[in-house]
Amino acid sequence: MPFFTTTLLRPQTLFQSQPQSKTLISLLLPLLLRRPISSSPSPMASSSSSEATLREVLAEKQAAVDAHAEAVRTLKARPGTPQSEIDSAVESLKGLKLEVAAVAKRLQAEGSANGDGVTGGLSKDVFRQTVVNTLERRLFFIPSFKIYRGVAGLYDYGPPGCAVKSNVLAFWRQHFVLEENMLEVDCPCVTPEVVLKASGHVDKFTDLMVKDEKTGTCFRADHLLKDYCKEKLEKDLTLAPAKVAELKHVIAVLDDLSAEELGAKLKEYGITAPDTKNPLSDPYPFNLMFQTSIGPTGLSTGYMRPETAQGIFVNFKDLYYYNGNKLPFAAAQIGQAFRNEISPRQGLLRVREFTLAEIEHFVDPDDKSHPKFHDVAKLEFLMFPREDQLTGKSARKIFLGEAVSKGTINNETLGYFIGRVFLFLTHLGINKERLRFRQHLPNEMAHYAADCWDAEIESSFGWIECVGIADRSAYDLRAHTDKSGVPLVAHEKFSEPREVEKLVITPSKKDLGLAFKGSQKMVVEALEAMPEKEALELKATFESKGEAEFLVCTLGKTVTITKNMVTISMEKKKEHQRVFTPSVIEPSFGIGRIIYCLYEHSFYTRPSKSEGEQLNVFKFPPIVAPIKCTVFPLVKNDQFDEVARNIAKALTKAGISNIIDITGTSIGKRYARTDEIGVPFAVTVDSVTTVTIRERDSKEQIRVAIDEVASVVKEVTEGQSTWADVMWRYPTHAASSDE
Amino acid sequence: MPFFTTTLLRPQTLFQSQPQSKTLISLLLPLLLRRPISSSPSPMASSSSSEATLREVLAEKQAAVDAHAEAVRTLKARPGTPQSEIDSAVESLKGLKLEVAAVAKRLQAEGSANGDGVTGGLSKDVFRQTVVNTLERRLFFIPSFKIYRGVAGLYDYGPPGCAVKSNVLAFWRQHFVLEENMLEVDCPCVTPEVVLKASGHVDKFTDLMVKDEKTGTCFRADHLLKDYCKEKLEKDLTLAPAKVAELKHVIAVLDDLSAEELGAKLKEYGITAPDTKNPLSDPYPFNLMFQTSIGPTGLSTGYMRPETAQGIFVNFKDLYYYNGNKLPFAAAQIGQAFRNEISPRQGLLRVREFTLAEIEHFVDPDDKSHPKFHDVAKLEFLMFPREDQLTGKSARKIFLGEAVSKGTINNETLGYFIGRVFLFLTHLGINKERLRFRQHLPNEMAHYAADCWDAEIESSFGWIECVGIADRSAYDLRAHTDKSGVPLVAHEKFSEPREVEKLVITPSKKDLGLAFKGSQKMVVEALEAMPEKEALELKATFESKGEAEFLVCTLGKTVTITKNMVTISMEKKKEHQRVFTPSVIEPSFGIGRIIYCLYEHSFYTRPSKSEGEQLNVFKFPPIVAPIKCTVFPLVKNDQFDEVARNIAKALTKAGISNIIDITGTSIGKRYARTDEIGVPFAVTVDSVTTVTIRERDSKEQIRVAIDEVASVVKEVTEGQSTWADVMWRYPTHAASSDE
Repeated sequence: MPFFTTTLLRPQTLFQSQPQSKTLISLLLPLLLRRPISSSPSPMASSSSSEATLREVLAEKQAAVDAHAEAVRTLKARPGTPQSEIDSAVESLKGLKLEVAAVAKRLQAEGSANGDGVTGGLSKDVFRQTVVNTLERRLFFIPSFKIYRGVAGLYDYGPPGCAVKSNVLAFWRQHFVLEENMLEVDCPCVTPEVVLKASGHVDKFTDLMVKDEKTGTCFRADHLLKDYCKEKLEKDLTLAPAKVAELKHVIAVLDDLSAEELGAKLKEYGITAPDTKNPLSDPYPFNLMFQTSIGPTGLSTGYMRPETAQGIFVNFKDLYYYNGNKLPFAAAQIGQAFRNEISPRQGLLRVREFTLAEIEHFVDPDDKSHPKFHDVAKLEFLMFPREDQLTGKSARKIFLGEAVSKGTINNETLGYFIGRVFLFLTHLGINKERLRFRQHLPNEMAHYAADCWDAEIESSFGWIECVGIADRSAYDLRAHTDKSGVPLVAHEKFSEPREVEKLVITPSKKDLGLAFKGSQKMVVEALEAMPEKEALELKATFESKGEAEFLVCTLGKTVTITKNMVTISMEKKKEHQRVFTPSVIEPSFGIGRIIYCLYEHSFYTRPSKSEGEQLNVFKFPPIVAPIKCTVFPLVKNDQFDEVARNIAKALTKAGISNIIDITGTSIGKRYARTDEIGVPFAVTVDSVTTVTIRERDSKEQIRVAIDEVASVVKEVTEGQSTWADVMWRYPTHAASSDE
Repeated sequence: MPFFTTTLLRPQTLFQSQPQSKTLISLLLPLLLRRPISSSPSPMASSSSSEATLREVLAEKQAAVDAHAEAVRTLKARPGTPQSEIDSAVESLKGLKLEVAAVAKRLQAEGSANGDGVTGGLSKDVFRQTVVNTLERRLFFIPSFKIYRGVAGLYDYGPPGCAVKSNVLAFWRQHFVLEENMLEVDCPCVTPEVVLKASGHVDKFTDLMVKDEKTGTCFRADHLLKDYCKEKLEKDLTLAPAKVAELKHVIAVLDDLSAEELGAKLKEYGITAPDTKNPLSDPYPFNLMFQTSIGPTGLSTGYMRPETAQGIFVNFKDLYYYNGNKLPFAAAQIGQAFRNEISPRQGLLRVREFTLAEIEHFVDPDDKSHPKFHDVAKLEFLMFPREDQLTGKSARKIFLGEAVSKGTINNETLGYFIGRVFLFLTHLGINKERLRFRQHLPNEMAHYAADCWDAEIESSFGWIECVGIADRSAYDLRAHTDKSGVPLVAHEKFSEPREVEKLVITPSKKDLGLAFKGSQKMVVEALEAMPEKEALELKATFESKGEAEFLVCTLGKTVTITKNMVTISMEKKKEHQRVFTPSVIEPSFGIGRIIYCLYEHSFYTRPSKSEGEQLNVFKFPPIVAPIKCTVFPLVKNDQFDEVARNIAKALTKAGISNIIDITGTSIGKRYARTDEIGVPFAVTVDSVTTVTIRERDSKEQIRVAIDEVASVVKEVTEGQSTWADVMWRYPTHAASSDE
């Protein structure tokens, strides 16, 4: 029975509590760790060093202030000092204090600033607030059950958000399911306990929780510790460098602390419950699955699935048959998943119910080549291999073909999916300079995993893990084979029988019975279950020493086995087929996170000509845009209204989502309204024969005959033509003075 | 606070325990009913009468057998009767018994036979088994968690089923959301208790359950009673006509029995637990929602939503604002819903988790006209108005325009949606002769509903309720306004202020206090809450008699109110706007049920030319078909394989789902395999310049140049052209002798 610690459990490695990047500082600190190292959204290497410089400058200046203040006090205390001399000293003290304040301000800003200009010069927090305000005002999302004061971690997709989501999923189906001939399935959310027992979720899908001992309010233990450390670092600017390092270290290893270690730190720092300041309980694990009961008896426990993957694994046998008993093949599923977070934070990024899109690609473990790898081999993009993280380097552009051929990426199939994920995300509008593929460090991966890469997208929250691409070897199918007794295996028939050497272990029950009496059965079972490598080592030890120490897990101790108690030999056998458990390569997409990052990458502001204010724009590509086209009459007029209605009808018939606005508001305002929900094209009716079509970002306009409008818009929204193509074909039109 | 009984609760009226049709027999029986009348999948009027005839014939023949048997006994007992005479009498007795057996067999078959030939002459049960076997073998669906012996009422959509579902939903979005500019939203499944308390589900969303008193196994009380009655009717062919009528009546009123009535019937018939035959508990209500707990404290109860509609209602205020504070508008939602059935039966029709697609169209209660009604007014299809059901008629074809203008359908908007639902279902491939719109009877509807129609589709289980289209008036918005305190209302601004007469009720607290002492407050509240009509009646009574009887619900009794205790008057006021709660018209689609009926309507068998067996075909229209096209090389050959691969690639690029089969199996077998999953077009590569395209149902083939294949297939699958159109454009090709 395989064992894994909390963080090695699949769902937690996939979407950890905080989007993470691994930095050198967190890795070199010599702490014995139970859980893999990870840091909170970390300042990048460069900003870390600028922060250190600022802290040094601050410390120097503060020391100068202290010295100067002392001098002023001395002056004042000395009888007969001229007032002018005192005034002058006080003035210069004030000047020094202002300098300290300025440096402190810069230091505080450092944590939230974004240096690369993608936030339009705004601080990350201000930028995020602007985006989120726009999203909420235009109903991209709505806090669920708002009229009842809502529920933390639950959000509705309002009309434009729902359309974006449905567009992203439709493109996912085209890009993955259709292009790769995947077998899509759709399984229920309600899942019986046995399935999630087999997968490990019932026992290990937990976070550490503490309770306010008086009110019973619950908190995530690691959140409280992190908040304490961050606040100290931000507000207490006179911290000694050693203390700064200690607090940063705690943040870095937060995910790796055991319940005991976390509890000890909370005590050491005297951390109490927020608001009430009451004492806290010791940390204890809380299972994150929503539990329910299936059927009326109350005896059959069920859970709302924490991921969609298990639905595919339990169907492996049928899907393999459906695929003509051939490997490789992939199955896919889009659906809701549920995690009963202790205290959801980070808005749309950490929620209690979300849409996952998961692929399980089943492959022969002895042949992980991919026939279409050459289609993606020439892609070059930001990768962050394990070695670069360990040696303190930054992510860098690497050709995918090179990464696979050099062994940085474990195999072609894994590489192929990494490439396909890159194409998927950038096609949606994710900025490729703010997208990196980060390899898991050895201690981040489950022991059975062959290799793991996360597609991380940079947002105002830091680098967010949005897609996990893991080679999980045979782990999941084996777990369900063991629990269900149904062999989830593949067969390879040999064209002619092959002679193979097989290990045969034959315990001598008589000798073992004499030696171990009542424990004989457990020793026999342990011997029979030995992996090949261990058996061969045992055999060698017998040959050299005549006996060997042997751990019997079920007895909880090591026993001495003598040579006569077990025969270990390699025997030759004829085999007609090979029976094996396929490996699974799993790309798993957090759809809500991708959409949120897409919002941030698509958002910009531009000045309004008429009113001098900033206008918000989402530069969604047409494939993502919630509404593809708007239709406005230039002035209120029955004839123009009718033309507008006919164009809207033609667009609808062509399957192009559109809105018609005949309110008579100024054309500039109408453009601004639709730019703000990312509508890429606007048709303005200013005649009864031809109309103008305006592109959102360039604001360029072309003039098109009424009966061609629908087909031109269809061409550019469905990607058959670009805007540049149609600009070339149709006369351009001078922009309205209203804009 | 509005009150409704179990069946008047929205979800239960929408998808009642058994698909129903109302027959005269069930309505004329004089039983005082708490719940609306409904019958189990009822034999149609015609089959009912043929059954009655058969029962009469059977009774006559059985009487003849009995008389003859008596005669034989007499003969045998009479000494000296010649053996030849006895033998001859015994022979004729045997003949009579055979006749009885034949009639009994016909009578048994009557219940399951389908007389209209749509099941290809098979009995309903055999037909259903053939369809379901095919669906399960080809993985249209899979019992969920099969390797763990499954969970009743949970099914997976396997690859072709998942594709059909996704096609149905995509068409739903095009047909409703896009065509009507609806505001689509996407809300979580996890729902806090307060929301479902307001909607009434927490208190009333129940089924009656009984427990095996020894084992604790749970059963639906009505199921046990129905099973008993049906078995009696089927197996006990000598039942007296009165008993037959009684049992049929019980089945008919099953849904209307209270817990006490059900319990009494179970006792009367001596019904015990199936299998164990243990005694049963009294029936008691079991809430059908899956309950869970939100957050870590265990204090916040949540449920998995039993429908998606509530997510829309609680967002009314934001959606109304999003729509520019204008009515009418519609919001829509597609998503999972959950019902913890006590004992799911009827396979795919009654499940514990399912996909709903719901529309809430908000409209001014004073103006339910619809601007696009004329687009559907000329549609003519099967309707089953209330009056026809009450007078024992059958469903008949009516023009939609006529149904609305004569007031059969309450209003244009409701009529418009009925028409749109008809178009939606028939476009998917539902046979319009087996689709009817049945109006709810007065006692089936909630007291607040203005009118309700169900789209019922005939299947082997009888008439299945697949879409409910209800005018629910202001009920839902009012319920959430009351519970949340947030007014969910619309405003109509007057162009100039209007003088209105308003009812003013002013209780005299002093006089009421003297008369009712401690109960004064409740009497005051009841007086203030009086609807206008009642208040005016009270005023009239005061004027004639000086006092009146008045029911105070909160006191549970009627009190006498004298004229001096309350002033009721109509006063004139100036108003600048009208504030009102919109009415909601709700079409609600059970996607899984529609898909299941579609499977039955699409399935047929045809003889295999080469092997003499029957081949299964699903005649899905291209829009529904899970795979649009297959590509086969006629013979195994590298050149043909390459052509096939290129065609498959071109199809994928055009967004056409396809499978390529280069296994070299006979072409006939390959066609049979793909006909069985309903692939409409097959491309056979028999040259390197042109190929053939075969249409599934006609088996006609045309010859098309390789580089035109993708565009031709796209045209016919996306509906720009019909098969007849392309047949006319391309040369036909003689069918392969292999077929």
